[in-house]
Amino acid sequence: MFVTFLSDYGPGDEYVGVVEGVIASIAPEVRVIHLGHGVPAQDVRTGSRRLARALPFAPAGVHLAVVDPGVGGARRAVAVRCGARWLVGPDNGLLVPAAESLGIDEVIEVSASRWRLEPVSATFHGRDLFGPVAAHLALGEIPDGPRSNGDELVRLPALPAGKVHVVEVDGFGNLITDAALPSSAVRIAGHEVAVGRTFGDVPPGGLVIYEDSAGDVAVAVNGGDAAALLGVRAGDELELS
Amino acid sequence: MFVTFLSDYGPGDEYVGVVEGVIASIAPEVRVIHLGHGVPAQDVRTGSRRLARALPFAPAGVHLAVVDPGVGGARRAVAVRCGARWLVGPDNGLLVPAAESLGIDEVIEVSASRWRLEPVSATFHGRDLFGPVAAHLALGEIPDGPRSNGDELVRLPALPAGKVHVVEVDGFGNLITDAALPSSAVRIAGHEVAVGRTFGDVPPGGLVIYEDSAGDVAVAVNGGDAAALLGVRAGDELELS
Amino acid sequence: MFVTFLSDYGPGDEYVGVVEGVIASIAPEVRVIHLGHGVPAQDVRTGSRRLARALPFAPAGVHLAVVDPGVGGARRAVAVRCGARWLVGPDNGLLVPAAESLGIDEVIEVSASRWRLEPVSATFHGRDLFGPVAAHLALGEIPDGPRSNGDELVRLPALPAGKVHVVEVDGFGNLITDAALPSSAVRIAGHEVAVGRTFGDVPPGGLVIYEDSAGDVAVAVNGGDAAALLGVRAGDELELS
Repeated sequence: MFVTFLSDYGPGDEYVGVVEGVIASIAPEVRVIHLGHGVPAQDVRTGSRRLARALPFAPAGVHLAVVDPGVGGARRAVAVRCGARWLVGPDNGLLVPAAESLGIDEVIEVSASRWRLEPVSATFHGRDLFGPVAAHLALGEIPDGPRSNGDELVRLPALPAGKVHVVEVDGFGNLITDAALPSSAVRIAGHEVAVGRTFGDVPPGGLVIYEDSAGDVAVAVNGGDAAALLGVRAGDELELS
Repeated sequence: MFVTFLSDYGPGDEYVGVVEGVIASIAPEVRVIHLGHGVPAQDVRTGSRRLARALPFAPAGVHLAVVDPGVGGARRAVAVRCGARWLVGPDNGLLVPAAESLGIDEVIEVSASRWRLEPVSATFHGRDLFGPVAAHLALGEIPDGPRSNGDELVRLPALPAGKVHVVEVDGFGNLITDAALPSSAVRIAGHEVAVGRTFGDVPPGGLVIYEDSAGDVAVAVNGGDAAALLGVRAGDELELS
Repeated sequence: MFVTFLSDYGPGDEYVGVVEGVIASIAPEVRVIHLGHGVPAQDVRTGSRRLARALPFAPAGVHLAVVDPGVGGARRAVAVRCGARWLVGPDNGLLVPAAESLGIDEVIEVSASRWRLEPVSATFHGRDLFGPVAAHLALGEIPDGPRSNGDELVRLPALPAGKVHVVEVDGFGNLITDAALPSSAVRIAGHEVAVGRTFGDVPPGGLVIYEDSAGDVAVAVNGGDAAALLGVRAGDELELS
C-alpha cells in the first residue's frame, strides 16, 4: 500500500520525516512516496495544483497533503474518498482540484479522529492528526466522523478572468500561467518571447512560451530562470503584448 | 527494520543517497526514513535538537545522525544503545539529548569498526563508517569496540542562563527560543508580539509567540518569516520587553 | 530490486515524486533510492560527476539520471547495460563517466520505447519516457530499440588542459577542482590555503586544500562556504600561486 505525501514543510527540516515516522509506526509495511515538500510556505493554491498534477501518475493509495495556514484554528480536517483513493488534509481548498478530477464519492470529517496523537499540538497537525489518519486509512480502516458529499468543501477563489496571471513558479523559475497559447511571438516586460514546444526551441538565454507537461501554458528561459529575469512571482499579473 | 537518517548533508547533493546506497548494499531489506538533511552546515546543536524532537515519533530501529565538523580528526564515533534503539554518529554532542531522553544503556566506540569501508576517507564518514555501522546494527549484529556507560560522551555547553536565545530557526523562519511563555504581549526589536496558540491567532503579517509542537516557546509571523523580519539567526540573543 | 534516481528536478517540486509514482505504478515492489536532485539546473557535467561518484556505493539495479537541457529535441534517450546494472537517461554525456567506469556492454536507444506514456510531453521525459523505461528494466524486461556498443555516445568536452578549474561546487560550498594536490600551502584569490587531510586541519574560517572522499582535490573553508568566500562558481578557472 502506498501513501503519497506533499506539503510546504520544506525539504530540509525534520517535519517530513517525523510524519513519515508516525506513519511507519502505525503502518510499518506502507511505503511513502514524497510528492515534494517545497510548496511555498502556506501557498494553498500552488499546493493544490501540484497535487492535482501529480496524482494521475501516483499509484492508488492514500494521498496526504498538508499546506495549512489555518492549522489549530477552526478549519476542518477531512478524508475524501475518490474511488480506490483517499485524499487527506485540511479543508481549505488544497485537496479539491485533485479530488474533483478523480470524482468525489464521500467526505468524512476527521478533525476529531480517534486516531489523533494526544495531546494534539496547535501547529503540527501533519504529525498529530493527518499522518495518523493517513496511516490508518492505508491499513484499510474507515474513519468515523461526520459524512458529506463534498459540496461543502472550501474552494479556492478563481483568479480574476480577463487577465493573465503567473499562477505558479516552479523550482527552475519557469512560470505557469493561465494564458492561452499565443499563435505567434509575444512580448513580456519588454522581452521577446517565442512560441515553442520545448526549451531548446530558443537559443540559450531566450524566452519561450509553450504548453507544459500538464497542459498549462508556461514561460521559460532556455537554461535560465524566467521568474528572476522577468521579476515576477506567483500571483502576479502578466501582460502579453 | 528501520534506519532513520538525519544530517547536514543538504537535500540536493548525492551524499545522502550515497549513504542510503551503502546501507542498502549491506542490508537490502532495511527501510531508510529521512529525518531531514537541511541542518545548517556543522550546526551540531540544531541537529541534536531536531533528532531529539523526531525520535519519539520514529519507529524503533537504528537512528543515524551525522553533523560532524570534526570528521577525520580525533573525535570518537559511537553507537549508543537505548533500549531497542541504537543511535549512531559522532561523539560531539549530537546524539546526547535524544539518547538521554530515551535512557542510555551502553555506548560502544565504533571509530575503528571492522565494518568500515576501506580506505576510510578523511571527510565522508557517513559513507565509510557511520552508514556501514548503522546497516550492520539494523541486521542485528553487535559492534565490537570499547564499551562504556555514556558518562564520557561529549556534551554541548549550555547556553548562558538569564538571557533568551534564538536556539534554532526552522525552514519557515520560525524562531525556537529558550524563553518562557509570556503572560501577555511583548515587544521584540520594536515589533509587537502577541501571545497565541497558533499562527492564525494573529492577522497575516503579525507576530505571535506560542508554545510549539515540541513544547518550546517559539516566535512566528503568520504567513511570513520571523527570522527575516527580525533579522536574527540561531544563537542570537533575543530581548523581550 | 533497486532503482536509483538523480536529477536536476530540485528537492522541492513534485517532479521527483511524479517520476517515483510512475515507477511505483509499473513496478510496485521496486525501491527507489534518491541520489540527489539538486544538480544545478541543466548542468550535465556536475550531474555526470555525481552519478559516477555515487554508483560504486549503490546496490546493483537500474540507475536513472535526468539532467536534460535537450529534452524534446533531437538528442537520443538510451539505456546502457554495464554488467548487472542498467543506466538510463539522455544521451548527452550525463551517463558516460559512470558507465565507462563500470564498463559498457551494450547501448539500446529507447527514444521510441513502447513503454513510453502517451502522449509524450516535450518537456518532462523523466515522467513519460525515462521513468517507465527504468521501471520495466527493473522488472527484468529488455527494451527493444537500436543497439550499439556505446562508441557513438555523446561525450562532454574535456576542460582545457594546463589550467585549474572549479569543476563543481557542492552544497557546502566546497570547491571540487581538477588541480593536483600541492605539496605546500598555496594562495587563491589572495587567501592563504593550507594543505590538509580534513576540515579541522585548519582553524575555523581557514581555507584548506585536500583530497576529497572521491579522490579529487577540493578546497573548503572549515565551518564556512569556500565558493562564497572566493567568489567562484563551477566552471571558473582557479589560480593557485
